[in-house]
Amino acid sequence: MLLLPLDTKAREPLYEQMAHRIVELIDGGALAVGDRLPPSRALADTLGLNRSTVLRAYQELWALGYIESRPGSYTTVRQRARRVERGASSGDSAVPWEKVANAASRVLLDRHRRLATVRGDQVPKGTINFAGLAADRALAPVDDLRRAINRLLARQGGMALDYGDPAGYRPLREAIARRMQTHSVTVSPDEVLVTSGAQQAIDLVLRMLASPAARVVVEAPSYAAALPLFRANGYEPVEVPMRDDGMDLDALERAFDVARPTLVYTMPNFHNPTGITTSQPHRERLLALCSAHGIPLVEDGFEEEMKYFGRAVLPIKSMDHSNVVIYLGTFSKVLFPGLRIGWIAAHQDCIDRLTAIHRFASLSASTLGQVAIAHLCENGTFEAHLRRIHVAYRRRMQTLLRSMREHFPTRGVSWTEPNGGYTLWVRIERGTVTESQIVERLTAAKVMVAAGSNFFAHPPRSASFRLSISNLTEPDIEEGVRRIGRVLTQIVGG
Amino acid sequence: MLLLPLDTKAREPLYEQMAHRIVELIDGGALAVGDRLPPSRALADTLGLNRSTVLRAYQELWALGYIESRPGSYTTVRQRARRVERGASSGDSAVPWEKVANAASRVLLDRHRRLATVRGDQVPKGTINFAGLAADRALAPVDDLRRAINRLLARQGGMALDYGDPAGYRPLREAIARRMQTHSVTVSPDEVLVTSGAQQAIDLVLRMLASPAARVVVEAPSYAAALPLFRANGYEPVEVPMRDDGMDLDALERAFDVARPTLVYTMPNFHNPTGITTSQPHRERLLALCSAHGIPLVEDGFEEEMKYFGRAVLPIKSMDHSNVVIYLGTFSKVLFPGLRIGWIAAHQDCIDRLTAIHRFASLSASTLGQVAIAHLCENGTFEAHLRRIHVAYRRRMQTLLRSMREHFPTRGVSWTEPNGGYTLWVRIERGTVTESQIVERLTAAKVMVAAGSNFFAHPPRSASFRLSISNLTEPDIEEGVRRIGRVLTQIVGG
Repeated sequence: MLLLPLDTKAREPLYEQMAHRIVELIDGGALAVGDRLPPSRALADTLGLNRSTVLRAYQELWALGYIESRPGSYTTVRQRARRVERGASSGDSAVPWEKVANAASRVLLDRHRRLATVRGDQVPKGTINFAGLAADRALAPVDDLRRAINRLLARQGGMALDYGDPAGYRPLREAIARRMQTHSVTVSPDEVLVTSGAQQAIDLVLRMLASPAARVVVEAPSYAAALPLFRANGYEPVEVPMRDDGMDLDALERAFDVARPTLVYTMPNFHNPTGITTSQPHRERLLALCSAHGIPLVEDGFEEEMKYFGRAVLPIKSMDHSNVVIYLGTFSKVLFPGLRIGWIAAHQDCIDRLTAIHRFASLSASTLGQVAIAHLCENGTFEAHLRRIHVAYRRRMQTLLRSMREHFPTRGVSWTEPNGGYTLWVRIERGTVTESQIVERLTAAKVMVAAGSNFFAHPPRSASFRLSISNLTEPDIEEGVRRIGRVLTQIVGG
Repeated sequence: MLLLPLDTKAREPLYEQMAHRIVELIDGGALAVGDRLPPSRALADTLGLNRSTVLRAYQELWALGYIESRPGSYTTVRQRARRVERGASSGDSAVPWEKVANAASRVLLDRHRRLATVRGDQVPKGTINFAGLAADRALAPVDDLRRAINRLLARQGGMALDYGDPAGYRPLREAIARRMQTHSVTVSPDEVLVTSGAQQAIDLVLRMLASPAARVVVEAPSYAAALPLFRANGYEPVEVPMRDDGMDLDALERAFDVARPTLVYTMPNFHNPTGITTSQPHRERLLALCSAHGIPLVEDGFEEEMKYFGRAVLPIKSMDHSNVVIYLGTFSKVLFPGLRIGWIAAHQDCIDRLTAIHRFASLSASTLGQVAIAHLCENGTFEAHLRRIHVAYRRRMQTLLRSMREHFPTRGVSWTEPNGGYTLWVRIERGTVTESQIVERLTAAKVMVAAGSNFFAHPPRSASFRLSISNLTEPDIEEGVRRIGRVLTQIVGG
């Protein structure tokens, strides 16, 4: 006989109360697995309830896995599956993840593990970090953003928090088109796709053009986080060496003759890692080559806005009469990387396809981030902030270059002299010390740099490293360069 | 002879002034293409400047593409490439985008175009929209978020706007692990990866396990925006029909015998589109099958929190002793879809691999979104909001079900009765009218529904559609159902 105290005045429906009481009896051990429950009609009579109430309670108990019943048989208490207990979650798996994960994901995991050490929060105390590429948090216009979000959420309510257009928030696409016009690039808002940062932009392009025999021409060195992504998307990287004025275009022409690449990836401004900005003639010839061959040219303009010495060379996209350039931009290097807002500007046919991939891969970029950045572009914060950081970074870069001339050995080491951006490139021209030994000695001397080999698809012959000033004060830059200088002098001689 | 007025007191360096003046002469037409510039030494003498200043100006002019010089020859004005003019950007492309874009992207573009009409902002005035699945903007705790962001940005400054950990913001992963514990799922924060929404979560899993012969078992019907993504990632969908208690497990067992699938994708709660929640015994058997075969089981718990009738059935992940379940969650259905924050909870080996793919595909989810949601979880807003929307949506669903019983024909039409979530499923059991004709008639009657065929990989035999109450008031639900009822009565008879 079941004792089921039910309260007809409670808010909880009777069937739920009943199910609840029976669950308590089972969980408490009063009813054991295999024990019979009374037939629904009998129980209804006993309790003075409608039979449908009992049936509904039994249905609920069945759905929750507490009872089972077979046709023509009693309803009995069921053996439910055990829950996983706290602390027991890290056991073995019936799926051999390492085996079922594909080769592409292994490439990425391997690179992820090797790059993990560069993360800013893992820098030991007292070490000067020239490795990071995040802009200085102290310079970010946080209060402007705070006010903008406050205003937007107060005025527009949930609009800024709703699902967004996969192509991007229209006013932001308009602001981007206007911004690009200041660099002489003419695109309509329809030719702009807003992405979750430039990293996703690269990935979307790669996904659109991937094919079994895909090949991507990259500068050597190139952006470290793009290289494994090329491979993971099935592209064979074809490395073209960097010269003082960008990728070697004679080598590129030869590469075009050997086998048609799927696309060419270039960073014409403040190239990461070398800091090189290519000249107008270089841009023209590169564009002419790709146009003549009908090969998409991915122009990664991640630091388009960061020219603070001399005058700006125009983006390749500004001269793109044959619509072969896929331009990538980002707000991460000037405003806030944590909002994850970048964009792609390209021919309408290309943007439509990328938008479709974007939609199914992640629906849209963060609406709040898009609405906020559109606001900061419209109210002048973006421009004003740009002027401010230009002053700050110009000084830092000048400090870096001056300190290097002072403290670096005069022979056996060469470096680039960027006209903007955050990074420059140091090459060790002589000596028998390997790159990893150099990095090790620098680490011992309490400076962190980005090892050069990270930036190549195939291991380079000479040792090199990248220095970034994005997150360092002038005194730290000076002291850091002094430390590096001492190590380099030991290696190559004075 | 060049007339170059220079100001030795100006802030602009002399070489820049010089370059600037010469650019003006060229742009103004005073110097034409082919015109010679004086040799640097001669010009330096004339102007009384250091020769290096002139050389630097010439270098700048060369980089900007205004001059060229060959060894042993004069420096001459160069023909620069024309910029693309405003309004000229939508011309032809030397890249045949339709041809170079791969088959996967064509699948997505095609689906994107067909699904585009369902977007909420395209609903004609006076039409009642049962098609959308975005939560009601009016219910969103916008002010709580606004206050949270205000506080976070004022206190923590730029931290919330910086590059984030690819695995996710640690306090959010902790909050997610705690939240999952309330559903009896035990995972550590290390077993949680924060993604840009559940959509990206699905994509990351597919990318990790993709292979040439990949097959995914899906419920028929299933999530419309996942189906093209399966194909685009190279998976052949194997459809298993939905029964009243979820996917037909006998059919699943047979599918396992025919060919080993790569993974099984299921939505055990408030299944989209049918609204069905599977029972504990169904979950146990599905899990046992996948565990026995070592096949990853993707449990899409996108509406885990939305049970508002009766008691919750536990997630399959809660019983996952053999670590085959990849659990997907999202904040889009309860909090704000526009922040694009979802997550994956799975075995550490699996999460590590997904984190690596995530890092190279998009670096991380929006830091600001993560920090804000972590805060709303910690300060109780999430729980309080959940109670509030449960009340609202319970009423709406009750209104929907009551109205349907009142206005729908008693025969020839069947529908599901969900115990939570936003959607239910209507099937037309008789009549000769096709699904597209039904949708057309409904549109004419000023109601919008999601056509059933969107939710199948292979066209189904019977006509069906999904109704969603996520963004409708009770009076609108009642009126909309009345309209649908009239159309259905015409089709199947009273």
